[in-house]
Amino acid sequence: MSLFLIIDILGTIAFAISGSLTAMKKRLDIFGIFIIAFVTAVGGGTLRDILIDADITWMRDLTFVYVIVGATILAIAFRRKLNYVRKSLFLFDTIGIALYTVVGVEKGIEADFPALICIALGTMSACFGGVIRDILCNEIPIIFRKEIYATACILGGVTYFLLLETTLSQDVVIILAGTIVISVRLLAVTFKLSLPSLYKNEKES
Amino acid sequence: MSLFLIIDILGTIAFAISGSLTAMKKRLDIFGIFIIAFVTAVGGGTLRDILIDADITWMRDLTFVYVIVGATILAIAFRRKLNYVRKSLFLFDTIGIALYTVVGVEKGIEADFPALICIALGTMSACFGGVIRDILCNEIPIIFRKEIYATACILGGVTYFLLLETTLSQDVVIILAGTIVISVRLLAVTFKLSLPSLYKNEKES
Amino acid sequence: MSLFLIIDILGTIAFAISGSLTAMKKRLDIFGIFIIAFVTAVGGGTLRDILIDADITWMRDLTFVYVIVGATILAIAFRRKLNYVRKSLFLFDTIGIALYTVVGVEKGIEADFPALICIALGTMSACFGGVIRDILCNEIPIIFRKEIYATACILGGVTYFLLLETTLSQDVVIILAGTIVISVRLLAVTFKLSLPSLYKNEKES
Repeated sequence: MSLFLIIDILGTIAFAISGSLTAMKKRLDIFGIFIIAFVTAVGGGTLRDILIDADITWMRDLTFVYVIVGATILAIAFRRKLNYVRKSLFLFDTIGIALYTVVGVEKGIEADFPALICIALGTMSACFGGVIRDILCNEIPIIFRKEIYATACILGGVTYFLLLETTLSQDVVIILAGTIVISVRLLAVTFKLSLPSLYKNEKES
Repeated sequence: MSLFLIIDILGTIAFAISGSLTAMKKRLDIFGIFIIAFVTAVGGGTLRDILIDADITWMRDLTFVYVIVGATILAIAFRRKLNYVRKSLFLFDTIGIALYTVVGVEKGIEADFPALICIALGTMSACFGGVIRDILCNEIPIIFRKEIYATACILGGVTYFLLLETTLSQDVVIILAGTIVISVRLLAVTFKLSLPSLYKNEKES
Repeated sequence: MSLFLIIDILGTIAFAISGSLTAMKKRLDIFGIFIIAFVTAVGGGTLRDILIDADITWMRDLTFVYVIVGATILAIAFRRKLNYVRKSLFLFDTIGIALYTVVGVEKGIEADFPALICIALGTMSACFGGVIRDILCNEIPIIFRKEIYATACILGGVTYFLLLETTLSQDVVIILAGTIVISVRLLAVTFKLSLPSLYKNEKES
C-alpha cells in the first residue's frame, strides 16, 4: 500500500467522521448520517470530476465507500468518546486536505486546464465536501464565514505551479506543495489567523 | 402503452404534486412552484444521470415534462381539495419510488457499476428529488431526519441483486424487487416503523 | 471586441457585484464573497453545461474569471458607494440576462434539444446563478418567491423560436428576442408587475 493511499484513507476517515459529527449535531437519523459522512468525504472530488467531465473514482473503486461506511459506524458507536481523538482527527484532516488539494491540481493539469483553474479544482477537492455538507444541513457553509481551509489550499496550489517551473522531480513538488498546505493550516490554527474581516465594528456571530 | 410507462407517469404525477404542495406551503410564486415540482419529480434521476454521465431522459423525451406541467397545474387549481386524494397520491408515490429504484439499479448495471453503487443509484433515483426539493425550500431534507423511503429502496435494490443470482427472468426480478420496496414502505407507514433513533433522551423536533 | 462580448462582460460584472453584495449582507469573509460572486455570475451557465454535457466555458477561457475577480474586488472596495451606480448595475444586469437567455437557447439548439428544453436552458442560464447564490447563502431563492427574471427570459425564449420560423436573419432574431427580455423586465420593474399571487389573504413576507 503506497504512502499516498494511506494518507488518502486517513483523510477520508477524518472527513467522514467530521460529517458524521455535524449530522449527529443536527440530530439526523442513521441514513442521514451516512449520507452526510459520504458527501463530506467525497463531495468535493465528485463536484470536481463533474466539472472536468472525468470518471468519479468512488463509483468504480469501492475502497473509499468501505472506508467511509466503517468510519461512520465507528463515529456513531463512539460518538461520546470522539473528543479523545480530536487531535488525531485534526491531523488526519489536515494531511487529508493537503493530499486532496494536490490530487485536484494534478487532475486539472492532466485535463489540460489553465493553472488558475487547476488551483481552483484543488481547493474545491479539499473544501467543497464541507460546503455540500453544510448546505444539506441547512447552514451557510462555515468555510464562507470563517475561512479555515481555503487559503492553505490556494497557497499549496500556487506553490505547486511555482515549483513545476524548477528542476525538482514531481514527487518533491507534491511533497512541498502538500507541506505548504499543512504548514499554513497549522500556523493559522495555532495563531488563530484568519482572513481580515470586512466587518470591523461588530463581531461576527 | 406499457405497464411500466403507466407506473412511471403515475409516480411522476405523485412526485410533482408533492413538490407543488411543499412549494405552496412555502408560499412560493407560480414559477417557484413549477420549478420545485419539476426537481422533485426528475431531480433524483437527473443527479443519477450526471453521476454516471448518461443522457438525461426528460431533456430528449418531453412526455414527463408535460406530465409534470399538467400535474402541477392541477395541484395549483385544486390545492384546497388535495386532501381528498391523499391516499391515492400516497399509493402512486409508493409504486413510483419502487419503479424509480429498479430503473436506477438497472441504469447502474448497464453502465457496469459495482452492485453497491447500483443500489445507491437506485435509492438516489427514488429519494434525491425530495432532497433537492427540501434544499431549495431551505429545509434540512426530511429524509435525513425521518427516514421514510430510503430503507425500502435499499432493501429493494438488495433484493434485485440477490434474485439476479437465481434463474428467475428479469421481469420477475423487477416485479419482486419493486414489491419489496412497496411492502417495506407500506409496513413502515402502517406500523410507524422507522430507523432506531440515536437520540433517546429527547424527542426529535 | 464584438458587441456580444462587451454585453457578456457587462452582464458578468453586474452578476458578480450582485453576488458580492448578497455575500457581504450575509457577512461572509473574503473567500466566501469571491465564491458567491463567482457562482452568481457563472452558476447558471455551468449548470446548463453540465445538463447538456458541454464543456464549461470559464474553465478554458479565463476572461470571465478575471472579470469576476476584478468586479468583486471593486465591489468590496467600494461597498459603501455601490448605491450610486445602482441604476447602471440594474441596466447591465438586465441586458446581461437577455444575452444569457439567448446564449442558453442557442446552446440548446446546437445540441439538438426540443424547443421547450431550449427555452428552459436559456432561462436557467440567466436565472440559476442567483438560485445557487441564494442556496449557498441559506435563503429560499428569491426568484421562487418574487419572480423578477424568469417570465422575461421565458418570453424571450418563446420569441426566439417564433421568429426562427420567419425569414429574419439570426442576428435580427437574437436582437429581437433579447429586446423582449429587456422590455418585459423593464416594464415589470417600472409598473411593479409580478406573477399573480396564489395567497391572496395575506401579504407575502
